[in-house]
Amino acid sequence: MAVKAFGAYAADRPLEPIDITRRTPGPHDVQIEIAYCGVCHSDLHQVRAEWAGTLWPCVPGHEIVGRVSAVGAHVTRFRDGDLVGVGCIVDSCQHCEDCDAGLENYCDGMIGTYNFPTRDAPGHTLGGYSQRIVVHERYVLRISHPAEQLAAVAPLLCAGITTYSPLRHWQAGPGKKVGVVGIGGLGHMGIKLAHAMGAHVVAFTTSESKREDAKALGADEVVVSRNPDEMAAHAKSFDLILNTVAAPHDLDAFLVLLKRDGTMTLVGAPATPHPSPDVFNLITRRRSIAGSMIGGIPETQEMLDFCAGHGIIADIELIRADEINAAYERMLKGDVKYRFVIDSASLAG
Amino acid sequence: MAVKAFGAYAADRPLEPIDITRRTPGPHDVQIEIAYCGVCHSDLHQVRAEWAGTLWPCVPGHEIVGRVSAVGAHVTRFRDGDLVGVGCIVDSCQHCEDCDAGLENYCDGMIGTYNFPTRDAPGHTLGGYSQRIVVHERYVLRISHPAEQLAAVAPLLCAGITTYSPLRHWQAGPGKKVGVVGIGGLGHMGIKLAHAMGAHVVAFTTSESKREDAKALGADEVVVSRNPDEMAAHAKSFDLILNTVAAPHDLDAFLVLLKRDGTMTLVGAPATPHPSPDVFNLITRRRSIAGSMIGGIPETQEMLDFCAGHGIIADIELIRADEINAAYERMLKGDVKYRFVIDSASLAG
Ligand SMILES: [Zn+2]
Ligand SMILES: [Zn+2]
Ligand SMILES: [Zn+2]
Ligand SMILES: [Zn+2]
Repeated sequence: MAVKAFGAYAADRPLEPIDITRRTPGPHDVQIEIAYCGVCHSDLHQVRAEWAGTLWPCVPGHEIVGRVSAVGAHVTRFRDGDLVGVGCIVDSCQHCEDCDAGLENYCDGMIGTYNFPTRDAPGHTLGGYSQRIVVHERYVLRISHPAEQLAAVAPLLCAGITTYSPLRHWQAGPGKKVGVVGIGGLGHMGIKLAHAMGAHVVAFTTSESKREDAKALGADEVVVSRNPDEMAAHAKSFDLILNTVAAPHDLDAFLVLLKRDGTMTLVGAPATPHPSPDVFNLITRRRSIAGSMIGGIPETQEMLDFCAGHGIIADIELIRADEINAAYERMLKGDVKYRFVIDSASLAG
Repeated sequence: MAVKAFGAYAADRPLEPIDITRRTPGPHDVQIEIAYCGVCHSDLHQVRAEWAGTLWPCVPGHEIVGRVSAVGAHVTRFRDGDLVGVGCIVDSCQHCEDCDAGLENYCDGMIGTYNFPTRDAPGHTLGGYSQRIVVHERYVLRISHPAEQLAAVAPLLCAGITTYSPLRHWQAGPGKKVGVVGIGGLGHMGIKLAHAMGAHVVAFTTSESKREDAKALGADEVVVSRNPDEMAAHAKSFDLILNTVAAPHDLDAFLVLLKRDGTMTLVGAPATPHPSPDVFNLITRRRSIAGSMIGGIPETQEMLDFCAGHGIIADIELIRADEINAAYERMLKGDVKYRFVIDSASLAG
């Protein structure tokens, strides 16, 4: 089945229209007409080969929402017309300890939505910057938001679950003081989610100009991290700091804000290392630095249901597919509030 | 009360006999005739001013065991002749959240056994390389080992609790695979304790020569960390790695051995930073790097009782006080199995 997509043939070439194919749905497959696809920083890193191993052509996109247009013979949970989503994962081994625990995101055999090996043409997975996708039912999520919010639901599939999972795992909730570092695609979801979970939320930003925006997103307090006095006022007070900033930066500035037994969880890996954190800051308060990657499929469904129940969607700017190259440039400057989403109708051309 | 001690008047001078005084016991004080004092790496760092803020004269020593020789009027838990110990802590604020939780080791007002401010002469605390010490009863531990083991009990007061506390906190026990990195004063206790807790214990050493020693201490397996094949065989398998090596080293080599949700806990702070750990190794398996410092007073008592119940003591080499400078040189070469302990009787001489 020929499908129109947007992708790149090489790292130094812009994204452009590409014709791809999708497999005929197998017995456990769900075929989805993509309505919208969010634009994640990972897309940019992979398609520009800033991460190793990019396979060509590269069609990014793992914040996918749309409607079911066909299901395999054994699929009972979905039917034509259902509103569904697909996130960062389209397959996994399905029998390891991680898969059994619903943590397919940590499975050694996890197949990402793009740039991972597959038997489908062209031999690697092609993502959501396309009109249609075919995915095993295990990795398809149900969306219960109103249909008119669909575009703004798309970013929940990566930015949403990537922040929801660590917030849940480290028990953000009433009585907990939770910091969110960085107010971008991930951070703005982290603020909304931590607030909805009932935590006292403090947003950290390097820019004075984001102070009011962060409050509007749900932050109880906002700290401009360049201001030492503001930072010092929060010393040894946080249960959890969710750090969404992938650019190398001083982790110690945030570690010292954790109380005893507090954890700072990193959800972005820097291209070059952060300055080495001071072990003294870990030892003196039994603090931890942890990492978290996306979330499992059951937890992604839980997150979508939580968001639907709390009226949570992403703040987005809708673009046409042929605006993607310009959108990347704006993302690099932080010039988006807070997520670009491609209107897949624009792929029809 | 004049007391003979061993200490240094300056960073570039050897330790030598020093006459110090101890306060008359107050209502809540316990006066202890020191029988033995273990020799910790911290002693060396502080007395050589490798750590900031050394106050002179410096009398190190925080692995203290001995017998009670007087108690204050309000002391009911101890009496003359009792076998007792004093570790790294001789005072704290006694009313903060940490103190209330029995985690005096994390109290902002913690007073270390040496080199911390006190109203006693000479204005800073003087440690256990001395004949006698006077300590508030809260910080005095009961020793139920047989008296003839007393010298080998001394190192439990720092090396023992520093490894016991993180092993308990991160739940070493049956069904858990626990690594211990470094087989020195701390590491040899970590192996014994993790083994007694019922964990499957893997010792990591850089030296082939320590392989049999580590097994004798209780390790189920020993890995020579310079051997990549041996390391790779343990990939993604550890629940907990207790890293006792303070010298800067490659943390990633051990991080990749943790399973999902595993933690590597550092109990030594390097003088210069470790190479910055790869955030990717944290994110891809939701791993943590944590720190832990000594342990609280109730947990120190628990540890001593646990050790008495399991027949656990340190492996020591007994020295005279005037051998301390030579012992430091041997410690720096790793030439001790596994802890020097000063026979305090040699101070009288
Ligand atoms: Zn993403
Ligand atoms: Zn699996
Ligand atoms: Zn010590
Ligand atoms: Zn306190």
